[in-house]
Amino acid sequence: MKILCLNGPNLNLLGQREPAIYGRSTLAQIEERVRKKASELGVSVDFRQTNLEGELVGWIQEARDNSDVIILNAAAYTHTSVALRDAIAAVGIPTIEVHLSNVHKREKFRHRSLIAPVCVGQIAGFGANSYVLALDAAVNINEA
Amino acid sequence: MKILCLNGPNLNLLGQREPAIYGRSTLAQIEERVRKKASELGVSVDFRQTNLEGELVGWIQEARDNSDVIILNAAAYTHTSVALRDAIAAVGIPTIEVHLSNVHKREKFRHRSLIAPVCVGQIAGFGANSYVLALDAAVNINEA
Amino acid sequence: MKILCLNGPNLNLLGQREPAIYGRSTLAQIEERVRKKASELGVSVDFRQTNLEGELVGWIQEARDNSDVIILNAAAYTHTSVALRDAIAAVGIPTIEVHLSNVHKREKFRHRSLIAPVCVGQIAGFGANSYVLALDAAVNINEA
Amino acid sequence: MKILCLNGPNLNLLGQREPAIYGRSTLAQIEERVRKKASELGVSVDFRQTNLEGELVGWIQEARDNSDVIILNAAAYTHTSVALRDAIAAVGIPTIEVHLSNVHKREKFRHRSLIAPVCVGQIAGFGANSYVLALDAAVNINEA
Amino acid sequence: MKILCLNGPNLNLLGQREPAIYGRSTLAQIEERVRKKASELGVSVDFRQTNLEGELVGWIQEARDNSDVIILNAAAYTHTSVALRDAIAAVGIPTIEVHLSNVHKREKFRHRSLIAPVCVGQIAGFGANSYVLALDAAVNINEA
Amino acid sequence: MKILCLNGPNLNLLGQREPAIYGRSTLAQIEERVRKKASELGVSVDFRQTNLEGELVGWIQEARDNSDVIILNAAAYTHTSVALRDAIAAVGIPTIEVHLSNVHKREKFRHRSLIAPVCVGQIAGFGANSYVLALDAAVNINEA
Amino acid sequence: MKILCLNGPNLNLLGQREPAIYGRSTLAQIEERVRKKASELGVSVDFRQTNLEGELVGWIQEARDNSDVIILNAAAYTHTSVALRDAIAAVGIPTIEVHLSNVHKREKFRHRSLIAPVCVGQIAGFGANSYVLALDAAVNINEA
Amino acid sequence: MKILCLNGPNLNLLGQREPAIYGRSTLAQIEERVRKKASELGVSVDFRQTNLEGELVGWIQEARDNSDVIILNAAAYTHTSVALRDAIAAVGIPTIEVHLSNVHKREKFRHRSLIAPVCVGQIAGFGANSYVLALDAAVNINEA
Amino acid sequence: MKILCLNGPNLNLLGQREPAIYGRSTLAQIEERVRKKASELGVSVDFRQTNLEGELVGWIQEARDNSDVIILNAAAYTHTSVALRDAIAAVGIPTIEVHLSNVHKREKFRHRSLIAPVCVGQIAGFGANSYVLALDAAVNINEA
Amino acid sequence: MKILCLNGPNLNLLGQREPAIYGRSTLAQIEERVRKKASELGVSVDFRQTNLEGELVGWIQEARDNSDVIILNAAAYTHTSVALRDAIAAVGIPTIEVHLSNVHKREKFRHRSLIAPVCVGQIAGFGANSYVLALDAAVNINEA
Amino acid sequence: MKILCLNGPNLNLLGQREPAIYGRSTLAQIEERVRKKASELGVSVDFRQTNLEGELVGWIQEARDNSDVIILNAAAYTHTSVALRDAIAAVGIPTIEVHLSNVHKREKFRHRSLIAPVCVGQIAGFGANSYVLALDAAVNINEA
Amino acid sequence: MKILCLNGPNLNLLGQREPAIYGRSTLAQIEERVRKKASELGVSVDFRQTNLEGELVGWIQEARDNSDVIILNAAAYTHTSVALRDAIAAVGIPTIEVHLSNVHKREKFRHRSLIAPVCVGQIAGFGANSYVLALDAAVNINEA
Repeated sequence: MKILCLNGPNLNLLGQREPAIYGRSTLAQIEERVRKKASELGVSVDFRQTNLEGELVGWIQEARDNSDVIILNAAAYTHTSVALRDAIAAVGIPTIEVHLSNVHKREKFRHRSLIAPVCVGQIAGFGANSYVLALDAAVNINEA
Repeated sequence: MKILCLNGPNLNLLGQREPAIYGRSTLAQIEERVRKKASELGVSVDFRQTNLEGELVGWIQEARDNSDVIILNAAAYTHTSVALRDAIAAVGIPTIEVHLSNVHKREKFRHRSLIAPVCVGQIAGFGANSYVLALDAAVNINEA
Repeated sequence: MKILCLNGPNLNLLGQREPAIYGRSTLAQIEERVRKKASELGVSVDFRQTNLEGELVGWIQEARDNSDVIILNAAAYTHTSVALRDAIAAVGIPTIEVHLSNVHKREKFRHRSLIAPVCVGQIAGFGANSYVLALDAAVNINEA
Repeated sequence: MKILCLNGPNLNLLGQREPAIYGRSTLAQIEERVRKKASELGVSVDFRQTNLEGELVGWIQEARDNSDVIILNAAAYTHTSVALRDAIAAVGIPTIEVHLSNVHKREKFRHRSLIAPVCVGQIAGFGANSYVLALDAAVNINEA
Repeated sequence: MKILCLNGPNLNLLGQREPAIYGRSTLAQIEERVRKKASELGVSVDFRQTNLEGELVGWIQEARDNSDVIILNAAAYTHTSVALRDAIAAVGIPTIEVHLSNVHKREKFRHRSLIAPVCVGQIAGFGANSYVLALDAAVNINEA
Repeated sequence: MKILCLNGPNLNLLGQREPAIYGRSTLAQIEERVRKKASELGVSVDFRQTNLEGELVGWIQEARDNSDVIILNAAAYTHTSVALRDAIAAVGIPTIEVHLSNVHKREKFRHRSLIAPVCVGQIAGFGANSYVLALDAAVNINEA
Repeated sequence: MKILCLNGPNLNLLGQREPAIYGRSTLAQIEERVRKKASELGVSVDFRQTNLEGELVGWIQEARDNSDVIILNAAAYTHTSVALRDAIAAVGIPTIEVHLSNVHKREKFRHRSLIAPVCVGQIAGFGANSYVLALDAAVNINEA
Repeated sequence: MKILCLNGPNLNLLGQREPAIYGRSTLAQIEERVRKKASELGVSVDFRQTNLEGELVGWIQEARDNSDVIILNAAAYTHTSVALRDAIAAVGIPTIEVHLSNVHKREKFRHRSLIAPVCVGQIAGFGANSYVLALDAAVNINEA
Repeated sequence: MKILCLNGPNLNLLGQREPAIYGRSTLAQIEERVRKKASELGVSVDFRQTNLEGELVGWIQEARDNSDVIILNAAAYTHTSVALRDAIAAVGIPTIEVHLSNVHKREKFRHRSLIAPVCVGQIAGFGANSYVLALDAAVNINEA
Repeated sequence: MKILCLNGPNLNLLGQREPAIYGRSTLAQIEERVRKKASELGVSVDFRQTNLEGELVGWIQEARDNSDVIILNAAAYTHTSVALRDAIAAVGIPTIEVHLSNVHKREKFRHRSLIAPVCVGQIAGFGANSYVLALDAAVNINEA
Repeated sequence: MKILCLNGPNLNLLGQREPAIYGRSTLAQIEERVRKKASELGVSVDFRQTNLEGELVGWIQEARDNSDVIILNAAAYTHTSVALRDAIAAVGIPTIEVHLSNVHKREKFRHRSLIAPVCVGQIAGFGANSYVLALDAAVNINEA
Repeated sequence: MKILCLNGPNLNLLGQREPAIYGRSTLAQIEERVRKKASELGVSVDFRQTNLEGELVGWIQEARDNSDVIILNAAAYTHTSVALRDAIAAVGIPTIEVHLSNVHKREKFRHRSLIAPVCVGQIAGFGANSYVLALDAAVNINEA
């Protein structure tokens, strides 16, 4: 099983960025935890980050040929991007929405996810552990 | 670690109830999966269901003395109950919000969770597996 | 044909309660009219009232095994209860929504029925006669 | 007792028009059922259809001199016509709102009835039987 | 004069529950202050608490035969319960709405009281003293 | 303890003005009741009325040097004045919001109080007695 | 000067129709008052009524060739008709909006006039006298 | 008959102020036209202007003893002043709302009049002539 | 192929009516262009205009027997008519929505088309050419 | 005449992407149809696609020097991009908005086009044919 | 160049009033900074404060004869006063809107400025320095 | 002191782009003015422009190591970009929001700034001078 784990804008600043909200792990540390868990589960992971909405769209499109599940932390674009939503719907690969913080207890504009209606499910609020849980969910995606 | 797993209205009908949305597992089967996972993780679980909002409130109140984490699938009351929200805030025990279906892709009134602002995080859309993931999240609640 | 006729909060006060809005019949008198009509139509009726949302949910769930049609005057819960809506959708038995008063000409919050989208139809505004009409509708539910 | 039964736009297409929503009876067949029921109840019925809002307004105005109760399926004009509402209020004859489909479970703009606040009550969702029930309600309009 | 003092969900946790918002008095201490004041004023008080919406509805109904004034802290149900509103309107006994905290300066959903339109008045924001003031208001209810 | 009791626009017409809503007491009679109660409680009261928003603002500002508590019936300005709100926040003296009528059961624009978020609490609906209760609340303001 | 005075739906019922709102004059009596005033002012008046939106549109279109000012009581269509608005804008003749009742103090949907943005001005609330005032305004339309 | 004609903020700038909207007459010229018409009609007029909301409130209050009708151009306060509304309701003297421009075709916030619900009627859009028409309406206020 | 080209209210005024918005072609000139194009494409066209909503409804209904595609410029009724929407849905003939002006850049109420959800597509903003393009679209309707 | 035909995010997936909505043509096939039509019409076409909002902005900017008309299918950015709107307004070249699907019958957020107010017109719902029609419209853009 | 610098309600409390929001400078100190800067720039400044909306209106009106630019910190009236807006539009003198705090990051009702649409520009969030910057902007107002 | 001055989409078109709104200065001329002022103030400026949202995000991120203040004209992205907001919050460097035009008097969607809540202050409406003022504000950022 091949899993594509995509990270949106500003996630490259993790660890430094508002740690009270996003926790103290850097993105590299999160990637490490994800890789370790993936190896336990016997799946491969492709882990990327970009600040560009259009690049995220492109990476989702590429998944058609290479990936079985997408784990997506679209960060700020979660709340504003119809393009991401259309990309996920277009490729038709099961996608899991992940957030470090519990977006539902923050500013009102973070309560609306434009991508949720085309995702399988959502995991939010568990810090770096949200990714690990998502990996577990990905592996069991077909029995849900 | 003691975990209180609470289930709200109509979840006793699982398996029969709109399986396209909620899956084919009965609540008893979910309980069994939860218990198995709990025993693997070395934690105890108290698993209950009720159709009464006030009884859910009471069970959350009791948790003050007996539980370390609450896993709560408040079902329909998720979207209408200020009483549940106040109960969770009052007892101050970390609470994880769980949903079988991805509420964010269903009717608009299911997008709003009155309890989310007082919960640690949310896991939605993975069927029975949502509970298992929540158990995992509960065990790691302090490192998130 | 077995018909379950359920009555929600405060309907036990009928006759005394704001007669300009709800009419002068008591719930017992309404039950009597319903029973008389039922016997004319050759159907049996189980007639109940409760102030508890969760108990209404439970009675609807029980209907799965015992009833062919539900006639439901959910009263105040009509406008606030997702739990009732989910119960009706879960049991899948044809349900007729009944109101004594014409809710569409009263306060704005009474215009929205959370249960209407899962009911067959609605009869509102004819006082005690709303129930008798509903009984007639129930008997012809399959030819509509 | 004289009953005026008015039908609004597109109801002349019944039977052919979206039968999954409106049923398979033609308007002529509905009229026949209404006439049969009326003759059982010993009342007379004047049954009409028009696509013109202003003609409906005119027919309601004429009712002042000729009718005891109006049964009105205003169809599309239910949701857009202040003129119909004003006509009903002006003539002051008890009016029963009827719909073939359960408008409350369809598109949001069909949930609002501009005429409901000036009608006695509403019967919706029982197909052709909605008319028959309305006739019954009309006959008992004064005892409600 | 007989006064019925009713308390809604989670008020049994007072003293422990978010003291910055609700103060440090327990419900028992509040009851004691109310009883002392009542005895000074020469009135009797029946003081109760429940987490169940339907039980509150029932207690209000019983007041018809036993009470002259209701003092009601409906807590969370203030903002969600049409059933409580209907009960108060049905029994027709003067009812005083009480809140420990100033609900008007808290979350937006606490600004709307569904029961206010059927109550005599509202006292909010004075902690346990809100009850004592309400008792005073109750005794003078007819001269207002 | 020095209490400043301020009255906003049109309150000088009390007694003549819509007595069904505001009661039959004149402002002079209310002042008399307030003075009598104040003398019982051993506190001094400065009682004023104005129709000018800016003058109310000025009086609240003066309170910094002379008063311990403000009792404020801002009348119409309750619903429109950010200036009053800013004045209360600026002086930082505990302020009690008072209304003769139960504003929460009147026109919708009276449900919103711009000053509530900066006041200690609100007493509304008890006619002239609202002031007497507020005086009692003022005296106990620090123990709430 | 030629004035076209147009009346919309249900105005033919005036005198009988809700006299508390619309006054006791019949449309014929209003026409008589308008004709008398017109003859005093030395202008001619063409006075018509219809229940059909499309006929009103047609009459406004005809005005291009025959009239200097339109006095329009569009009644119910005031609030729902974009077609009337477009007709007035298309012919470009000064149009005065008239209402018998003060629409601004009635139901909320009567506060919005779709035709106001293309009319010169509005006179509302003076019963039959609204027409007489409008005639006066029409004669002075160019000096305003 | 004594008529009080009140003018709100910025009307003292008429003639200079945005003449495309408000016309070229100064307030003095309007007063002159009003006085001339008043003398024709045999009524007396008291004509005033102020920029202060509270002073307008005071003048309306004084009308109780001296005036039979109020003609009020509240200008900007039309859209923001609950105090003016309360004053008009309190004194109970028939009040006619007047505007130079057709407020219904300008910015959206000018479409809402807070005072309309307590006024007899409204005349808007006829420039200085609006006042003259209002005077005519005032004289016939009791026959409307 | 038979094409029914229907035109709604005020389109008979084209050429004279606000040419900056609607262009300088008269409806007759548009019809001529449409007929010329139709003859090039080898299809027949039935071209009509009416100001009556109900007549448009009737013409759409007739199309069931005579037409393969409807080209509809519903003008003002686009934004207000549920009856037209229902007619189009009822007859089930492919319908193309046409506008002379770009409705999406005009007043907000013109942005909402009640008929769009039951039409194949929309062409707006190209003046008389919108019709010619629609004819082209009609001929290719099945390959889209 | 030089035409710039721009395509936004995910349009490179056409043919594979939700064919029930977007049709079965690939973007290359659409380009081919456009080129063929262009050559018939004797105009040149520059045809591009990108997933990057900023790149679309740049291409529109370049059009100032090279193009006479822009045909723009902004796809998802239609509904979210103020930057595209500003670019179109800045370059001042006539722009035609094109959509494969009828956006007006899909999700509500697709009904709002941020770019429509700065475009000449819109063609939506005709699949690949929408582009061909747009080319026709482009060639006639000055006579509309 | 003559500059009129006007300050609205509660600004006389600066320094004492919520220093975390408004800074520690008193209004006198701000005036001093403004005067010093003005003298550097060679312009004269008239600096005033009032709590009365109507007085602010009057001062703006006077500016017609005496001032070249108005610098206006309308404080609370920024968000509620149509009268100020009308005054600024009426006098037609360039006006610069100033705020000590960044109103756009505070309560939602502070985000809306009723006066912004008639001002040249806005400077907010720089404490006392906002005034100094405004002075600079004023001097360069014609080259912007 | 190092200042990073960032410019968003379409600002590279300044001078040509809608000069009535944005003025006649090109971005190069603005940069020149900024550099001149910076050299007067003894600070260094890094001045950049891009049409890509993600590139702006990246530049803000880089500022952590190189800049003391950010001056940001996010242009269109001001109103749509949560990503920019998150970037500013993440780097924690004081940021000043700048606009050439007074966004508060333009289209409604330009009134909302998503970045304002994380900026120090806002300067809008002074054309190229907005930048110069911002530079001044930047230099005094710590004394505000």
